[in-house]
Amino acid sequence: MPEPVIDTLVIIGVGLIGGSFARAVRSAGLVKYIIGCGREQKNLEKALKLGVIDEYSLDIQSAVRTVDMIFIATPVGSFQSIFTQLKDVLNKNTIITDGGSTKTSVIKMAEAVFGTVPENFVPGHPVAGTENSGVEASFDSLFNNHRVILTPLPQTSKKAIQIVTQLWHSTGAQVVTMDAQHHDMVLAATSHLPHLLAFSLVNTLTTLDEKQEIFDNAAGGFRDFTRIASSDPAMWQDICLANRDALLEHLDHFSRDLAKLRTALEQGDAETLKEIFTRAKQSRDDFVTKK
Amino acid sequence: MPEPVIDTLVIIGVGLIGGSFARAVRSAGLVKYIIGCGREQKNLEKALKLGVIDEYSLDIQSAVRTVDMIFIATPVGSFQSIFTQLKDVLNKNTIITDGGSTKTSVIKMAEAVFGTVPENFVPGHPVAGTENSGVEASFDSLFNNHRVILTPLPQTSKKAIQIVTQLWHSTGAQVVTMDAQHHDMVLAATSHLPHLLAFSLVNTLTTLDEKQEIFDNAAGGFRDFTRIASSDPAMWQDICLANRDALLEHLDHFSRDLAKLRTALEQGDAETLKEIFTRAKQSRDDFVTKK
Repeated sequence: MPEPVIDTLVIIGVGLIGGSFARAVRSAGLVKYIIGCGREQKNLEKALKLGVIDEYSLDIQSAVRTVDMIFIATPVGSFQSIFTQLKDVLNKNTIITDGGSTKTSVIKMAEAVFGTVPENFVPGHPVAGTENSGVEASFDSLFNNHRVILTPLPQTSKKAIQIVTQLWHSTGAQVVTMDAQHHDMVLAATSHLPHLLAFSLVNTLTTLDEKQEIFDNAAGGFRDFTRIASSDPAMWQDICLANRDALLEHLDHFSRDLAKLRTALEQGDAETLKEIFTRAKQSRDDFVTKK
Repeated sequence: MPEPVIDTLVIIGVGLIGGSFARAVRSAGLVKYIIGCGREQKNLEKALKLGVIDEYSLDIQSAVRTVDMIFIATPVGSFQSIFTQLKDVLNKNTIITDGGSTKTSVIKMAEAVFGTVPENFVPGHPVAGTENSGVEASFDSLFNNHRVILTPLPQTSKKAIQIVTQLWHSTGAQVVTMDAQHHDMVLAATSHLPHLLAFSLVNTLTTLDEKQEIFDNAAGGFRDFTRIASSDPAMWQDICLANRDALLEHLDHFSRDLAKLRTALEQGDAETLKEIFTRAKQSRDDFVTKK
């Protein structure tokens, strides 16, 4: 076991991401003591019972005063309120990081609340998850072989980045660094737009008269394609709004291309269909081979 | 073991579907001898080596003369040519069935070639598959617990329907019967549209400058959402064109709803986003629970 680098870690939002992070860094021996924070006592009790956390608090301000590190793992819509609660009680030496799925919006909220983004705040995003949520869905290998993207600012403390990176490495994750805006553009394409399309398709099908029969006759392809439509609606509402500009840009690009595909279909243009399908298959096969 | 009900079965197109059907009915002991037909000798040699078929022929006309049953398992775009080859040599007592993913187009082609749809032709569609293709991807439990939809016509022989049903039951499939047009409408929603969207999304992403980075940062949600974009392009070109009208109808419905979702996103209308996501999640969760 390595020496612990963190005595006390506070996790705000002990769900799938926060719970899995707690389990992973504890298994790795890098953290001595974990306090869970949240609004739902029932969930925190469950986390305590599962051994994910050592104690819990419903009051962020009293929990964070003397801790070494805070990991914010709530939906991004709650970050402004959390930053506001941290502002008056935060110890200068406490490292803050987060697991929010969008990054420019999180940085903007930090700026709005703190005046300038604190040097010890390392914005981050573990690109991992399942369609399940809640601490009971958490497991210590969730981040293993997944990417974690950090989007530090020029003023971000090198020491803080180093410690956050060390903790993520201990979970088995691969840590990469990029600009926050670039992160949001990439994630809009690879995660946010697919979620939007999956939610939208299933919603459309539920409005059809033959709804029941449609679902009765769906098979494995449909099950996989729509898996992400079982994700948490509140979380995804937050993500879509927080990354609205990048998402709209990709959505419009997608819709223009889909309209072209529609025209090819309507005109019976087999060549164009095959060309598009072939290019897609090739890219998707390459993606799977590389992973 | 039950008594065999078919002495000789010809499978035209020994790929994922044809090969899996051969394996399953042989395991069940319902078929004595299986002849594979196709255009690629290499593939048929492989099927023979794997024990999927007992012999093969590159010439449909010589293969089918005295057989009890023909299962057509090629992409639907080849059906007109296959029906034409069968026309002059077909024994009246030979039962024909197929695994085509669209049904009105197949029935129209049979009508065009034979004048009227033969009494012994039972149009069918096993709603099962994987993104892999070829006989090496076939396995005998592919249809287990999956639906097979038969779309017989008023003139279709009851005896032929009964035998085809018996064979499908022996593979573990659940057999349902419906009108061909209804089949096409349901499958356009649950299978053809999702394939079109998955192909289209991956194609759009490949055209972006940040293509490589986008794929590098994609995770499990993306992998599942796009799994069907790894399907065979030629087969899906055929399916989309063969079921063009139903597919266009669902695509337009989807696009109208997506445009509404876009407006809600642009206007920051959190309530509408959450409402749509929640309805989708509920339906998708119900679908998985029932399966």
